[in-house]
Amino acid sequence: MANSRSGDSMTTRLVRVLDTFSSERTVQSMTDIARRAGLPTSTTHRIVDELVREGLLERDDGRRIRLGMRLWELALRGSTALRLRQAALPHMERVQTVIREHTQLAVLEQGEALFLERLSHPAAGANITRVAGRLPLHASSSGLVLLAHADPLVRERVLSSPLSPVSAETPTDPDGLRRLLARIRRDGYVVAPGTVESVSTGVAAPIRDRGEVVAALSAVLPRGTDPGRAVDALVRAATAVEADLVQSR
Amino acid sequence: MANSRSGDSMTTRLVRVLDTFSSERTVQSMTDIARRAGLPTSTTHRIVDELVREGLLERDDGRRIRLGMRLWELALRGSTALRLRQAALPHMERVQTVIREHTQLAVLEQGEALFLERLSHPAAGANITRVAGRLPLHASSSGLVLLAHADPLVRERVLSSPLSPVSAETPTDPDGLRRLLARIRRDGYVVAPGTVESVSTGVAAPIRDRGEVVAALSAVLPRGTDPGRAVDALVRAATAVEADLVQSR
Repeated sequence: MANSRSGDSMTTRLVRVLDTFSSERTVQSMTDIARRAGLPTSTTHRIVDELVREGLLERDDGRRIRLGMRLWELALRGSTALRLRQAALPHMERVQTVIREHTQLAVLEQGEALFLERLSHPAAGANITRVAGRLPLHASSSGLVLLAHADPLVRERVLSSPLSPVSAETPTDPDGLRRLLARIRRDGYVVAPGTVESVSTGVAAPIRDRGEVVAALSAVLPRGTDPGRAVDALVRAATAVEADLVQSR
Repeated sequence: MANSRSGDSMTTRLVRVLDTFSSERTVQSMTDIARRAGLPTSTTHRIVDELVREGLLERDDGRRIRLGMRLWELALRGSTALRLRQAALPHMERVQTVIREHTQLAVLEQGEALFLERLSHPAAGANITRVAGRLPLHASSSGLVLLAHADPLVRERVLSSPLSPVSAETPTDPDGLRRLLARIRRDGYVVAPGTVESVSTGVAAPIRDRGEVVAALSAVLPRGTDPGRAVDALVRAATAVEADLVQSR
């Protein structure tokens, strides 16, 4: 319905408009949105006007455009992301009292690790992950846990595609990765030093719901920190989140 | 563009579909969505199919439909809600260490208090607010703070509309409310016992950004608790959030 000459549906064009916003680009002009979405200015105008009318976008005094609270509300109310995150948050806070660094919650989304939540101690070390940000599955500790427990077809698709390094220590050899993933399935956690940034170590454990791994709970520690306490805290927290997910059904 | 015979735009119909999901209705059949959205089944099918193709909705094995992670990602990345919530979260955690009940963050959205975040102690008392849920401005402590500092036109529109009670103690007299709102502006906080539920007391303080009140930080305490420590903790936390919002510009 409502297909443009290029064959894109209205929904596709709407997603392209929303997709131009990011944590670095929260406010944009109409011209910027049109250019970044690759849409004609007139089309962009019509879509933005409609989205503003529905509250999914908002205009500020200078006519610049930002994402609307109504979009946030529609996306969160009733989302799986919110249910997972509400179950995980108290236990993530408990992990933070032990490690006092960064604790994160991620899910597998479109072949990447999508971060649903991040808690950071004010004095914590480096960490490039952001809420609603993504990292490659083969690089981040969360991604490795999610990949280890992914559907075998998804796993082989990732392993047979080009594996770009994020840091000098990102594992990019498919056979080495297969062995690492088998080890993660056996151990129930991963310790990944330097695979995202040379200065930090990622630690992650799986969270299961109805027998399937649905998320990864991870910590980012300064490189060289003994990961033992973080592993214990994460594995314990993951089990507690699983119990709360059963309760929240 | 793409208006139906009823004159609704494609965006309006899309919002009506998304709006059928809630925290109590996270998974629905196509028939349920069509009925609740008030759209013909064929139209609903086409919209849902497009939304599934873009990842904004997801289908489970039983062909039932839920909100997609991609919608969550698009809505959060670059949203004002996320910026506010990231600035507020560490300070909300600090409030929780003092009060050990519920701490919440709310904004004024379309004439209601929309809750962006809620932290709850495992042993905390009653609290009906939910993340991405709403409460009337004249009933909740967050709403009262937001209403006290709202644009005078918005305030008068709310005060001149029918004010339904949420509990037996919800203030519904416009003149009494005007005096209460003036007192909130003077004091810098509100203590609202029983205005949402007879068993609890709401306490709230405003958060300012660029001189304007952009959010309310609130606590829900069991009725009868001395609100003094919560007031102090919230006012201190609100000031700290304001400093972090300046930093995050």
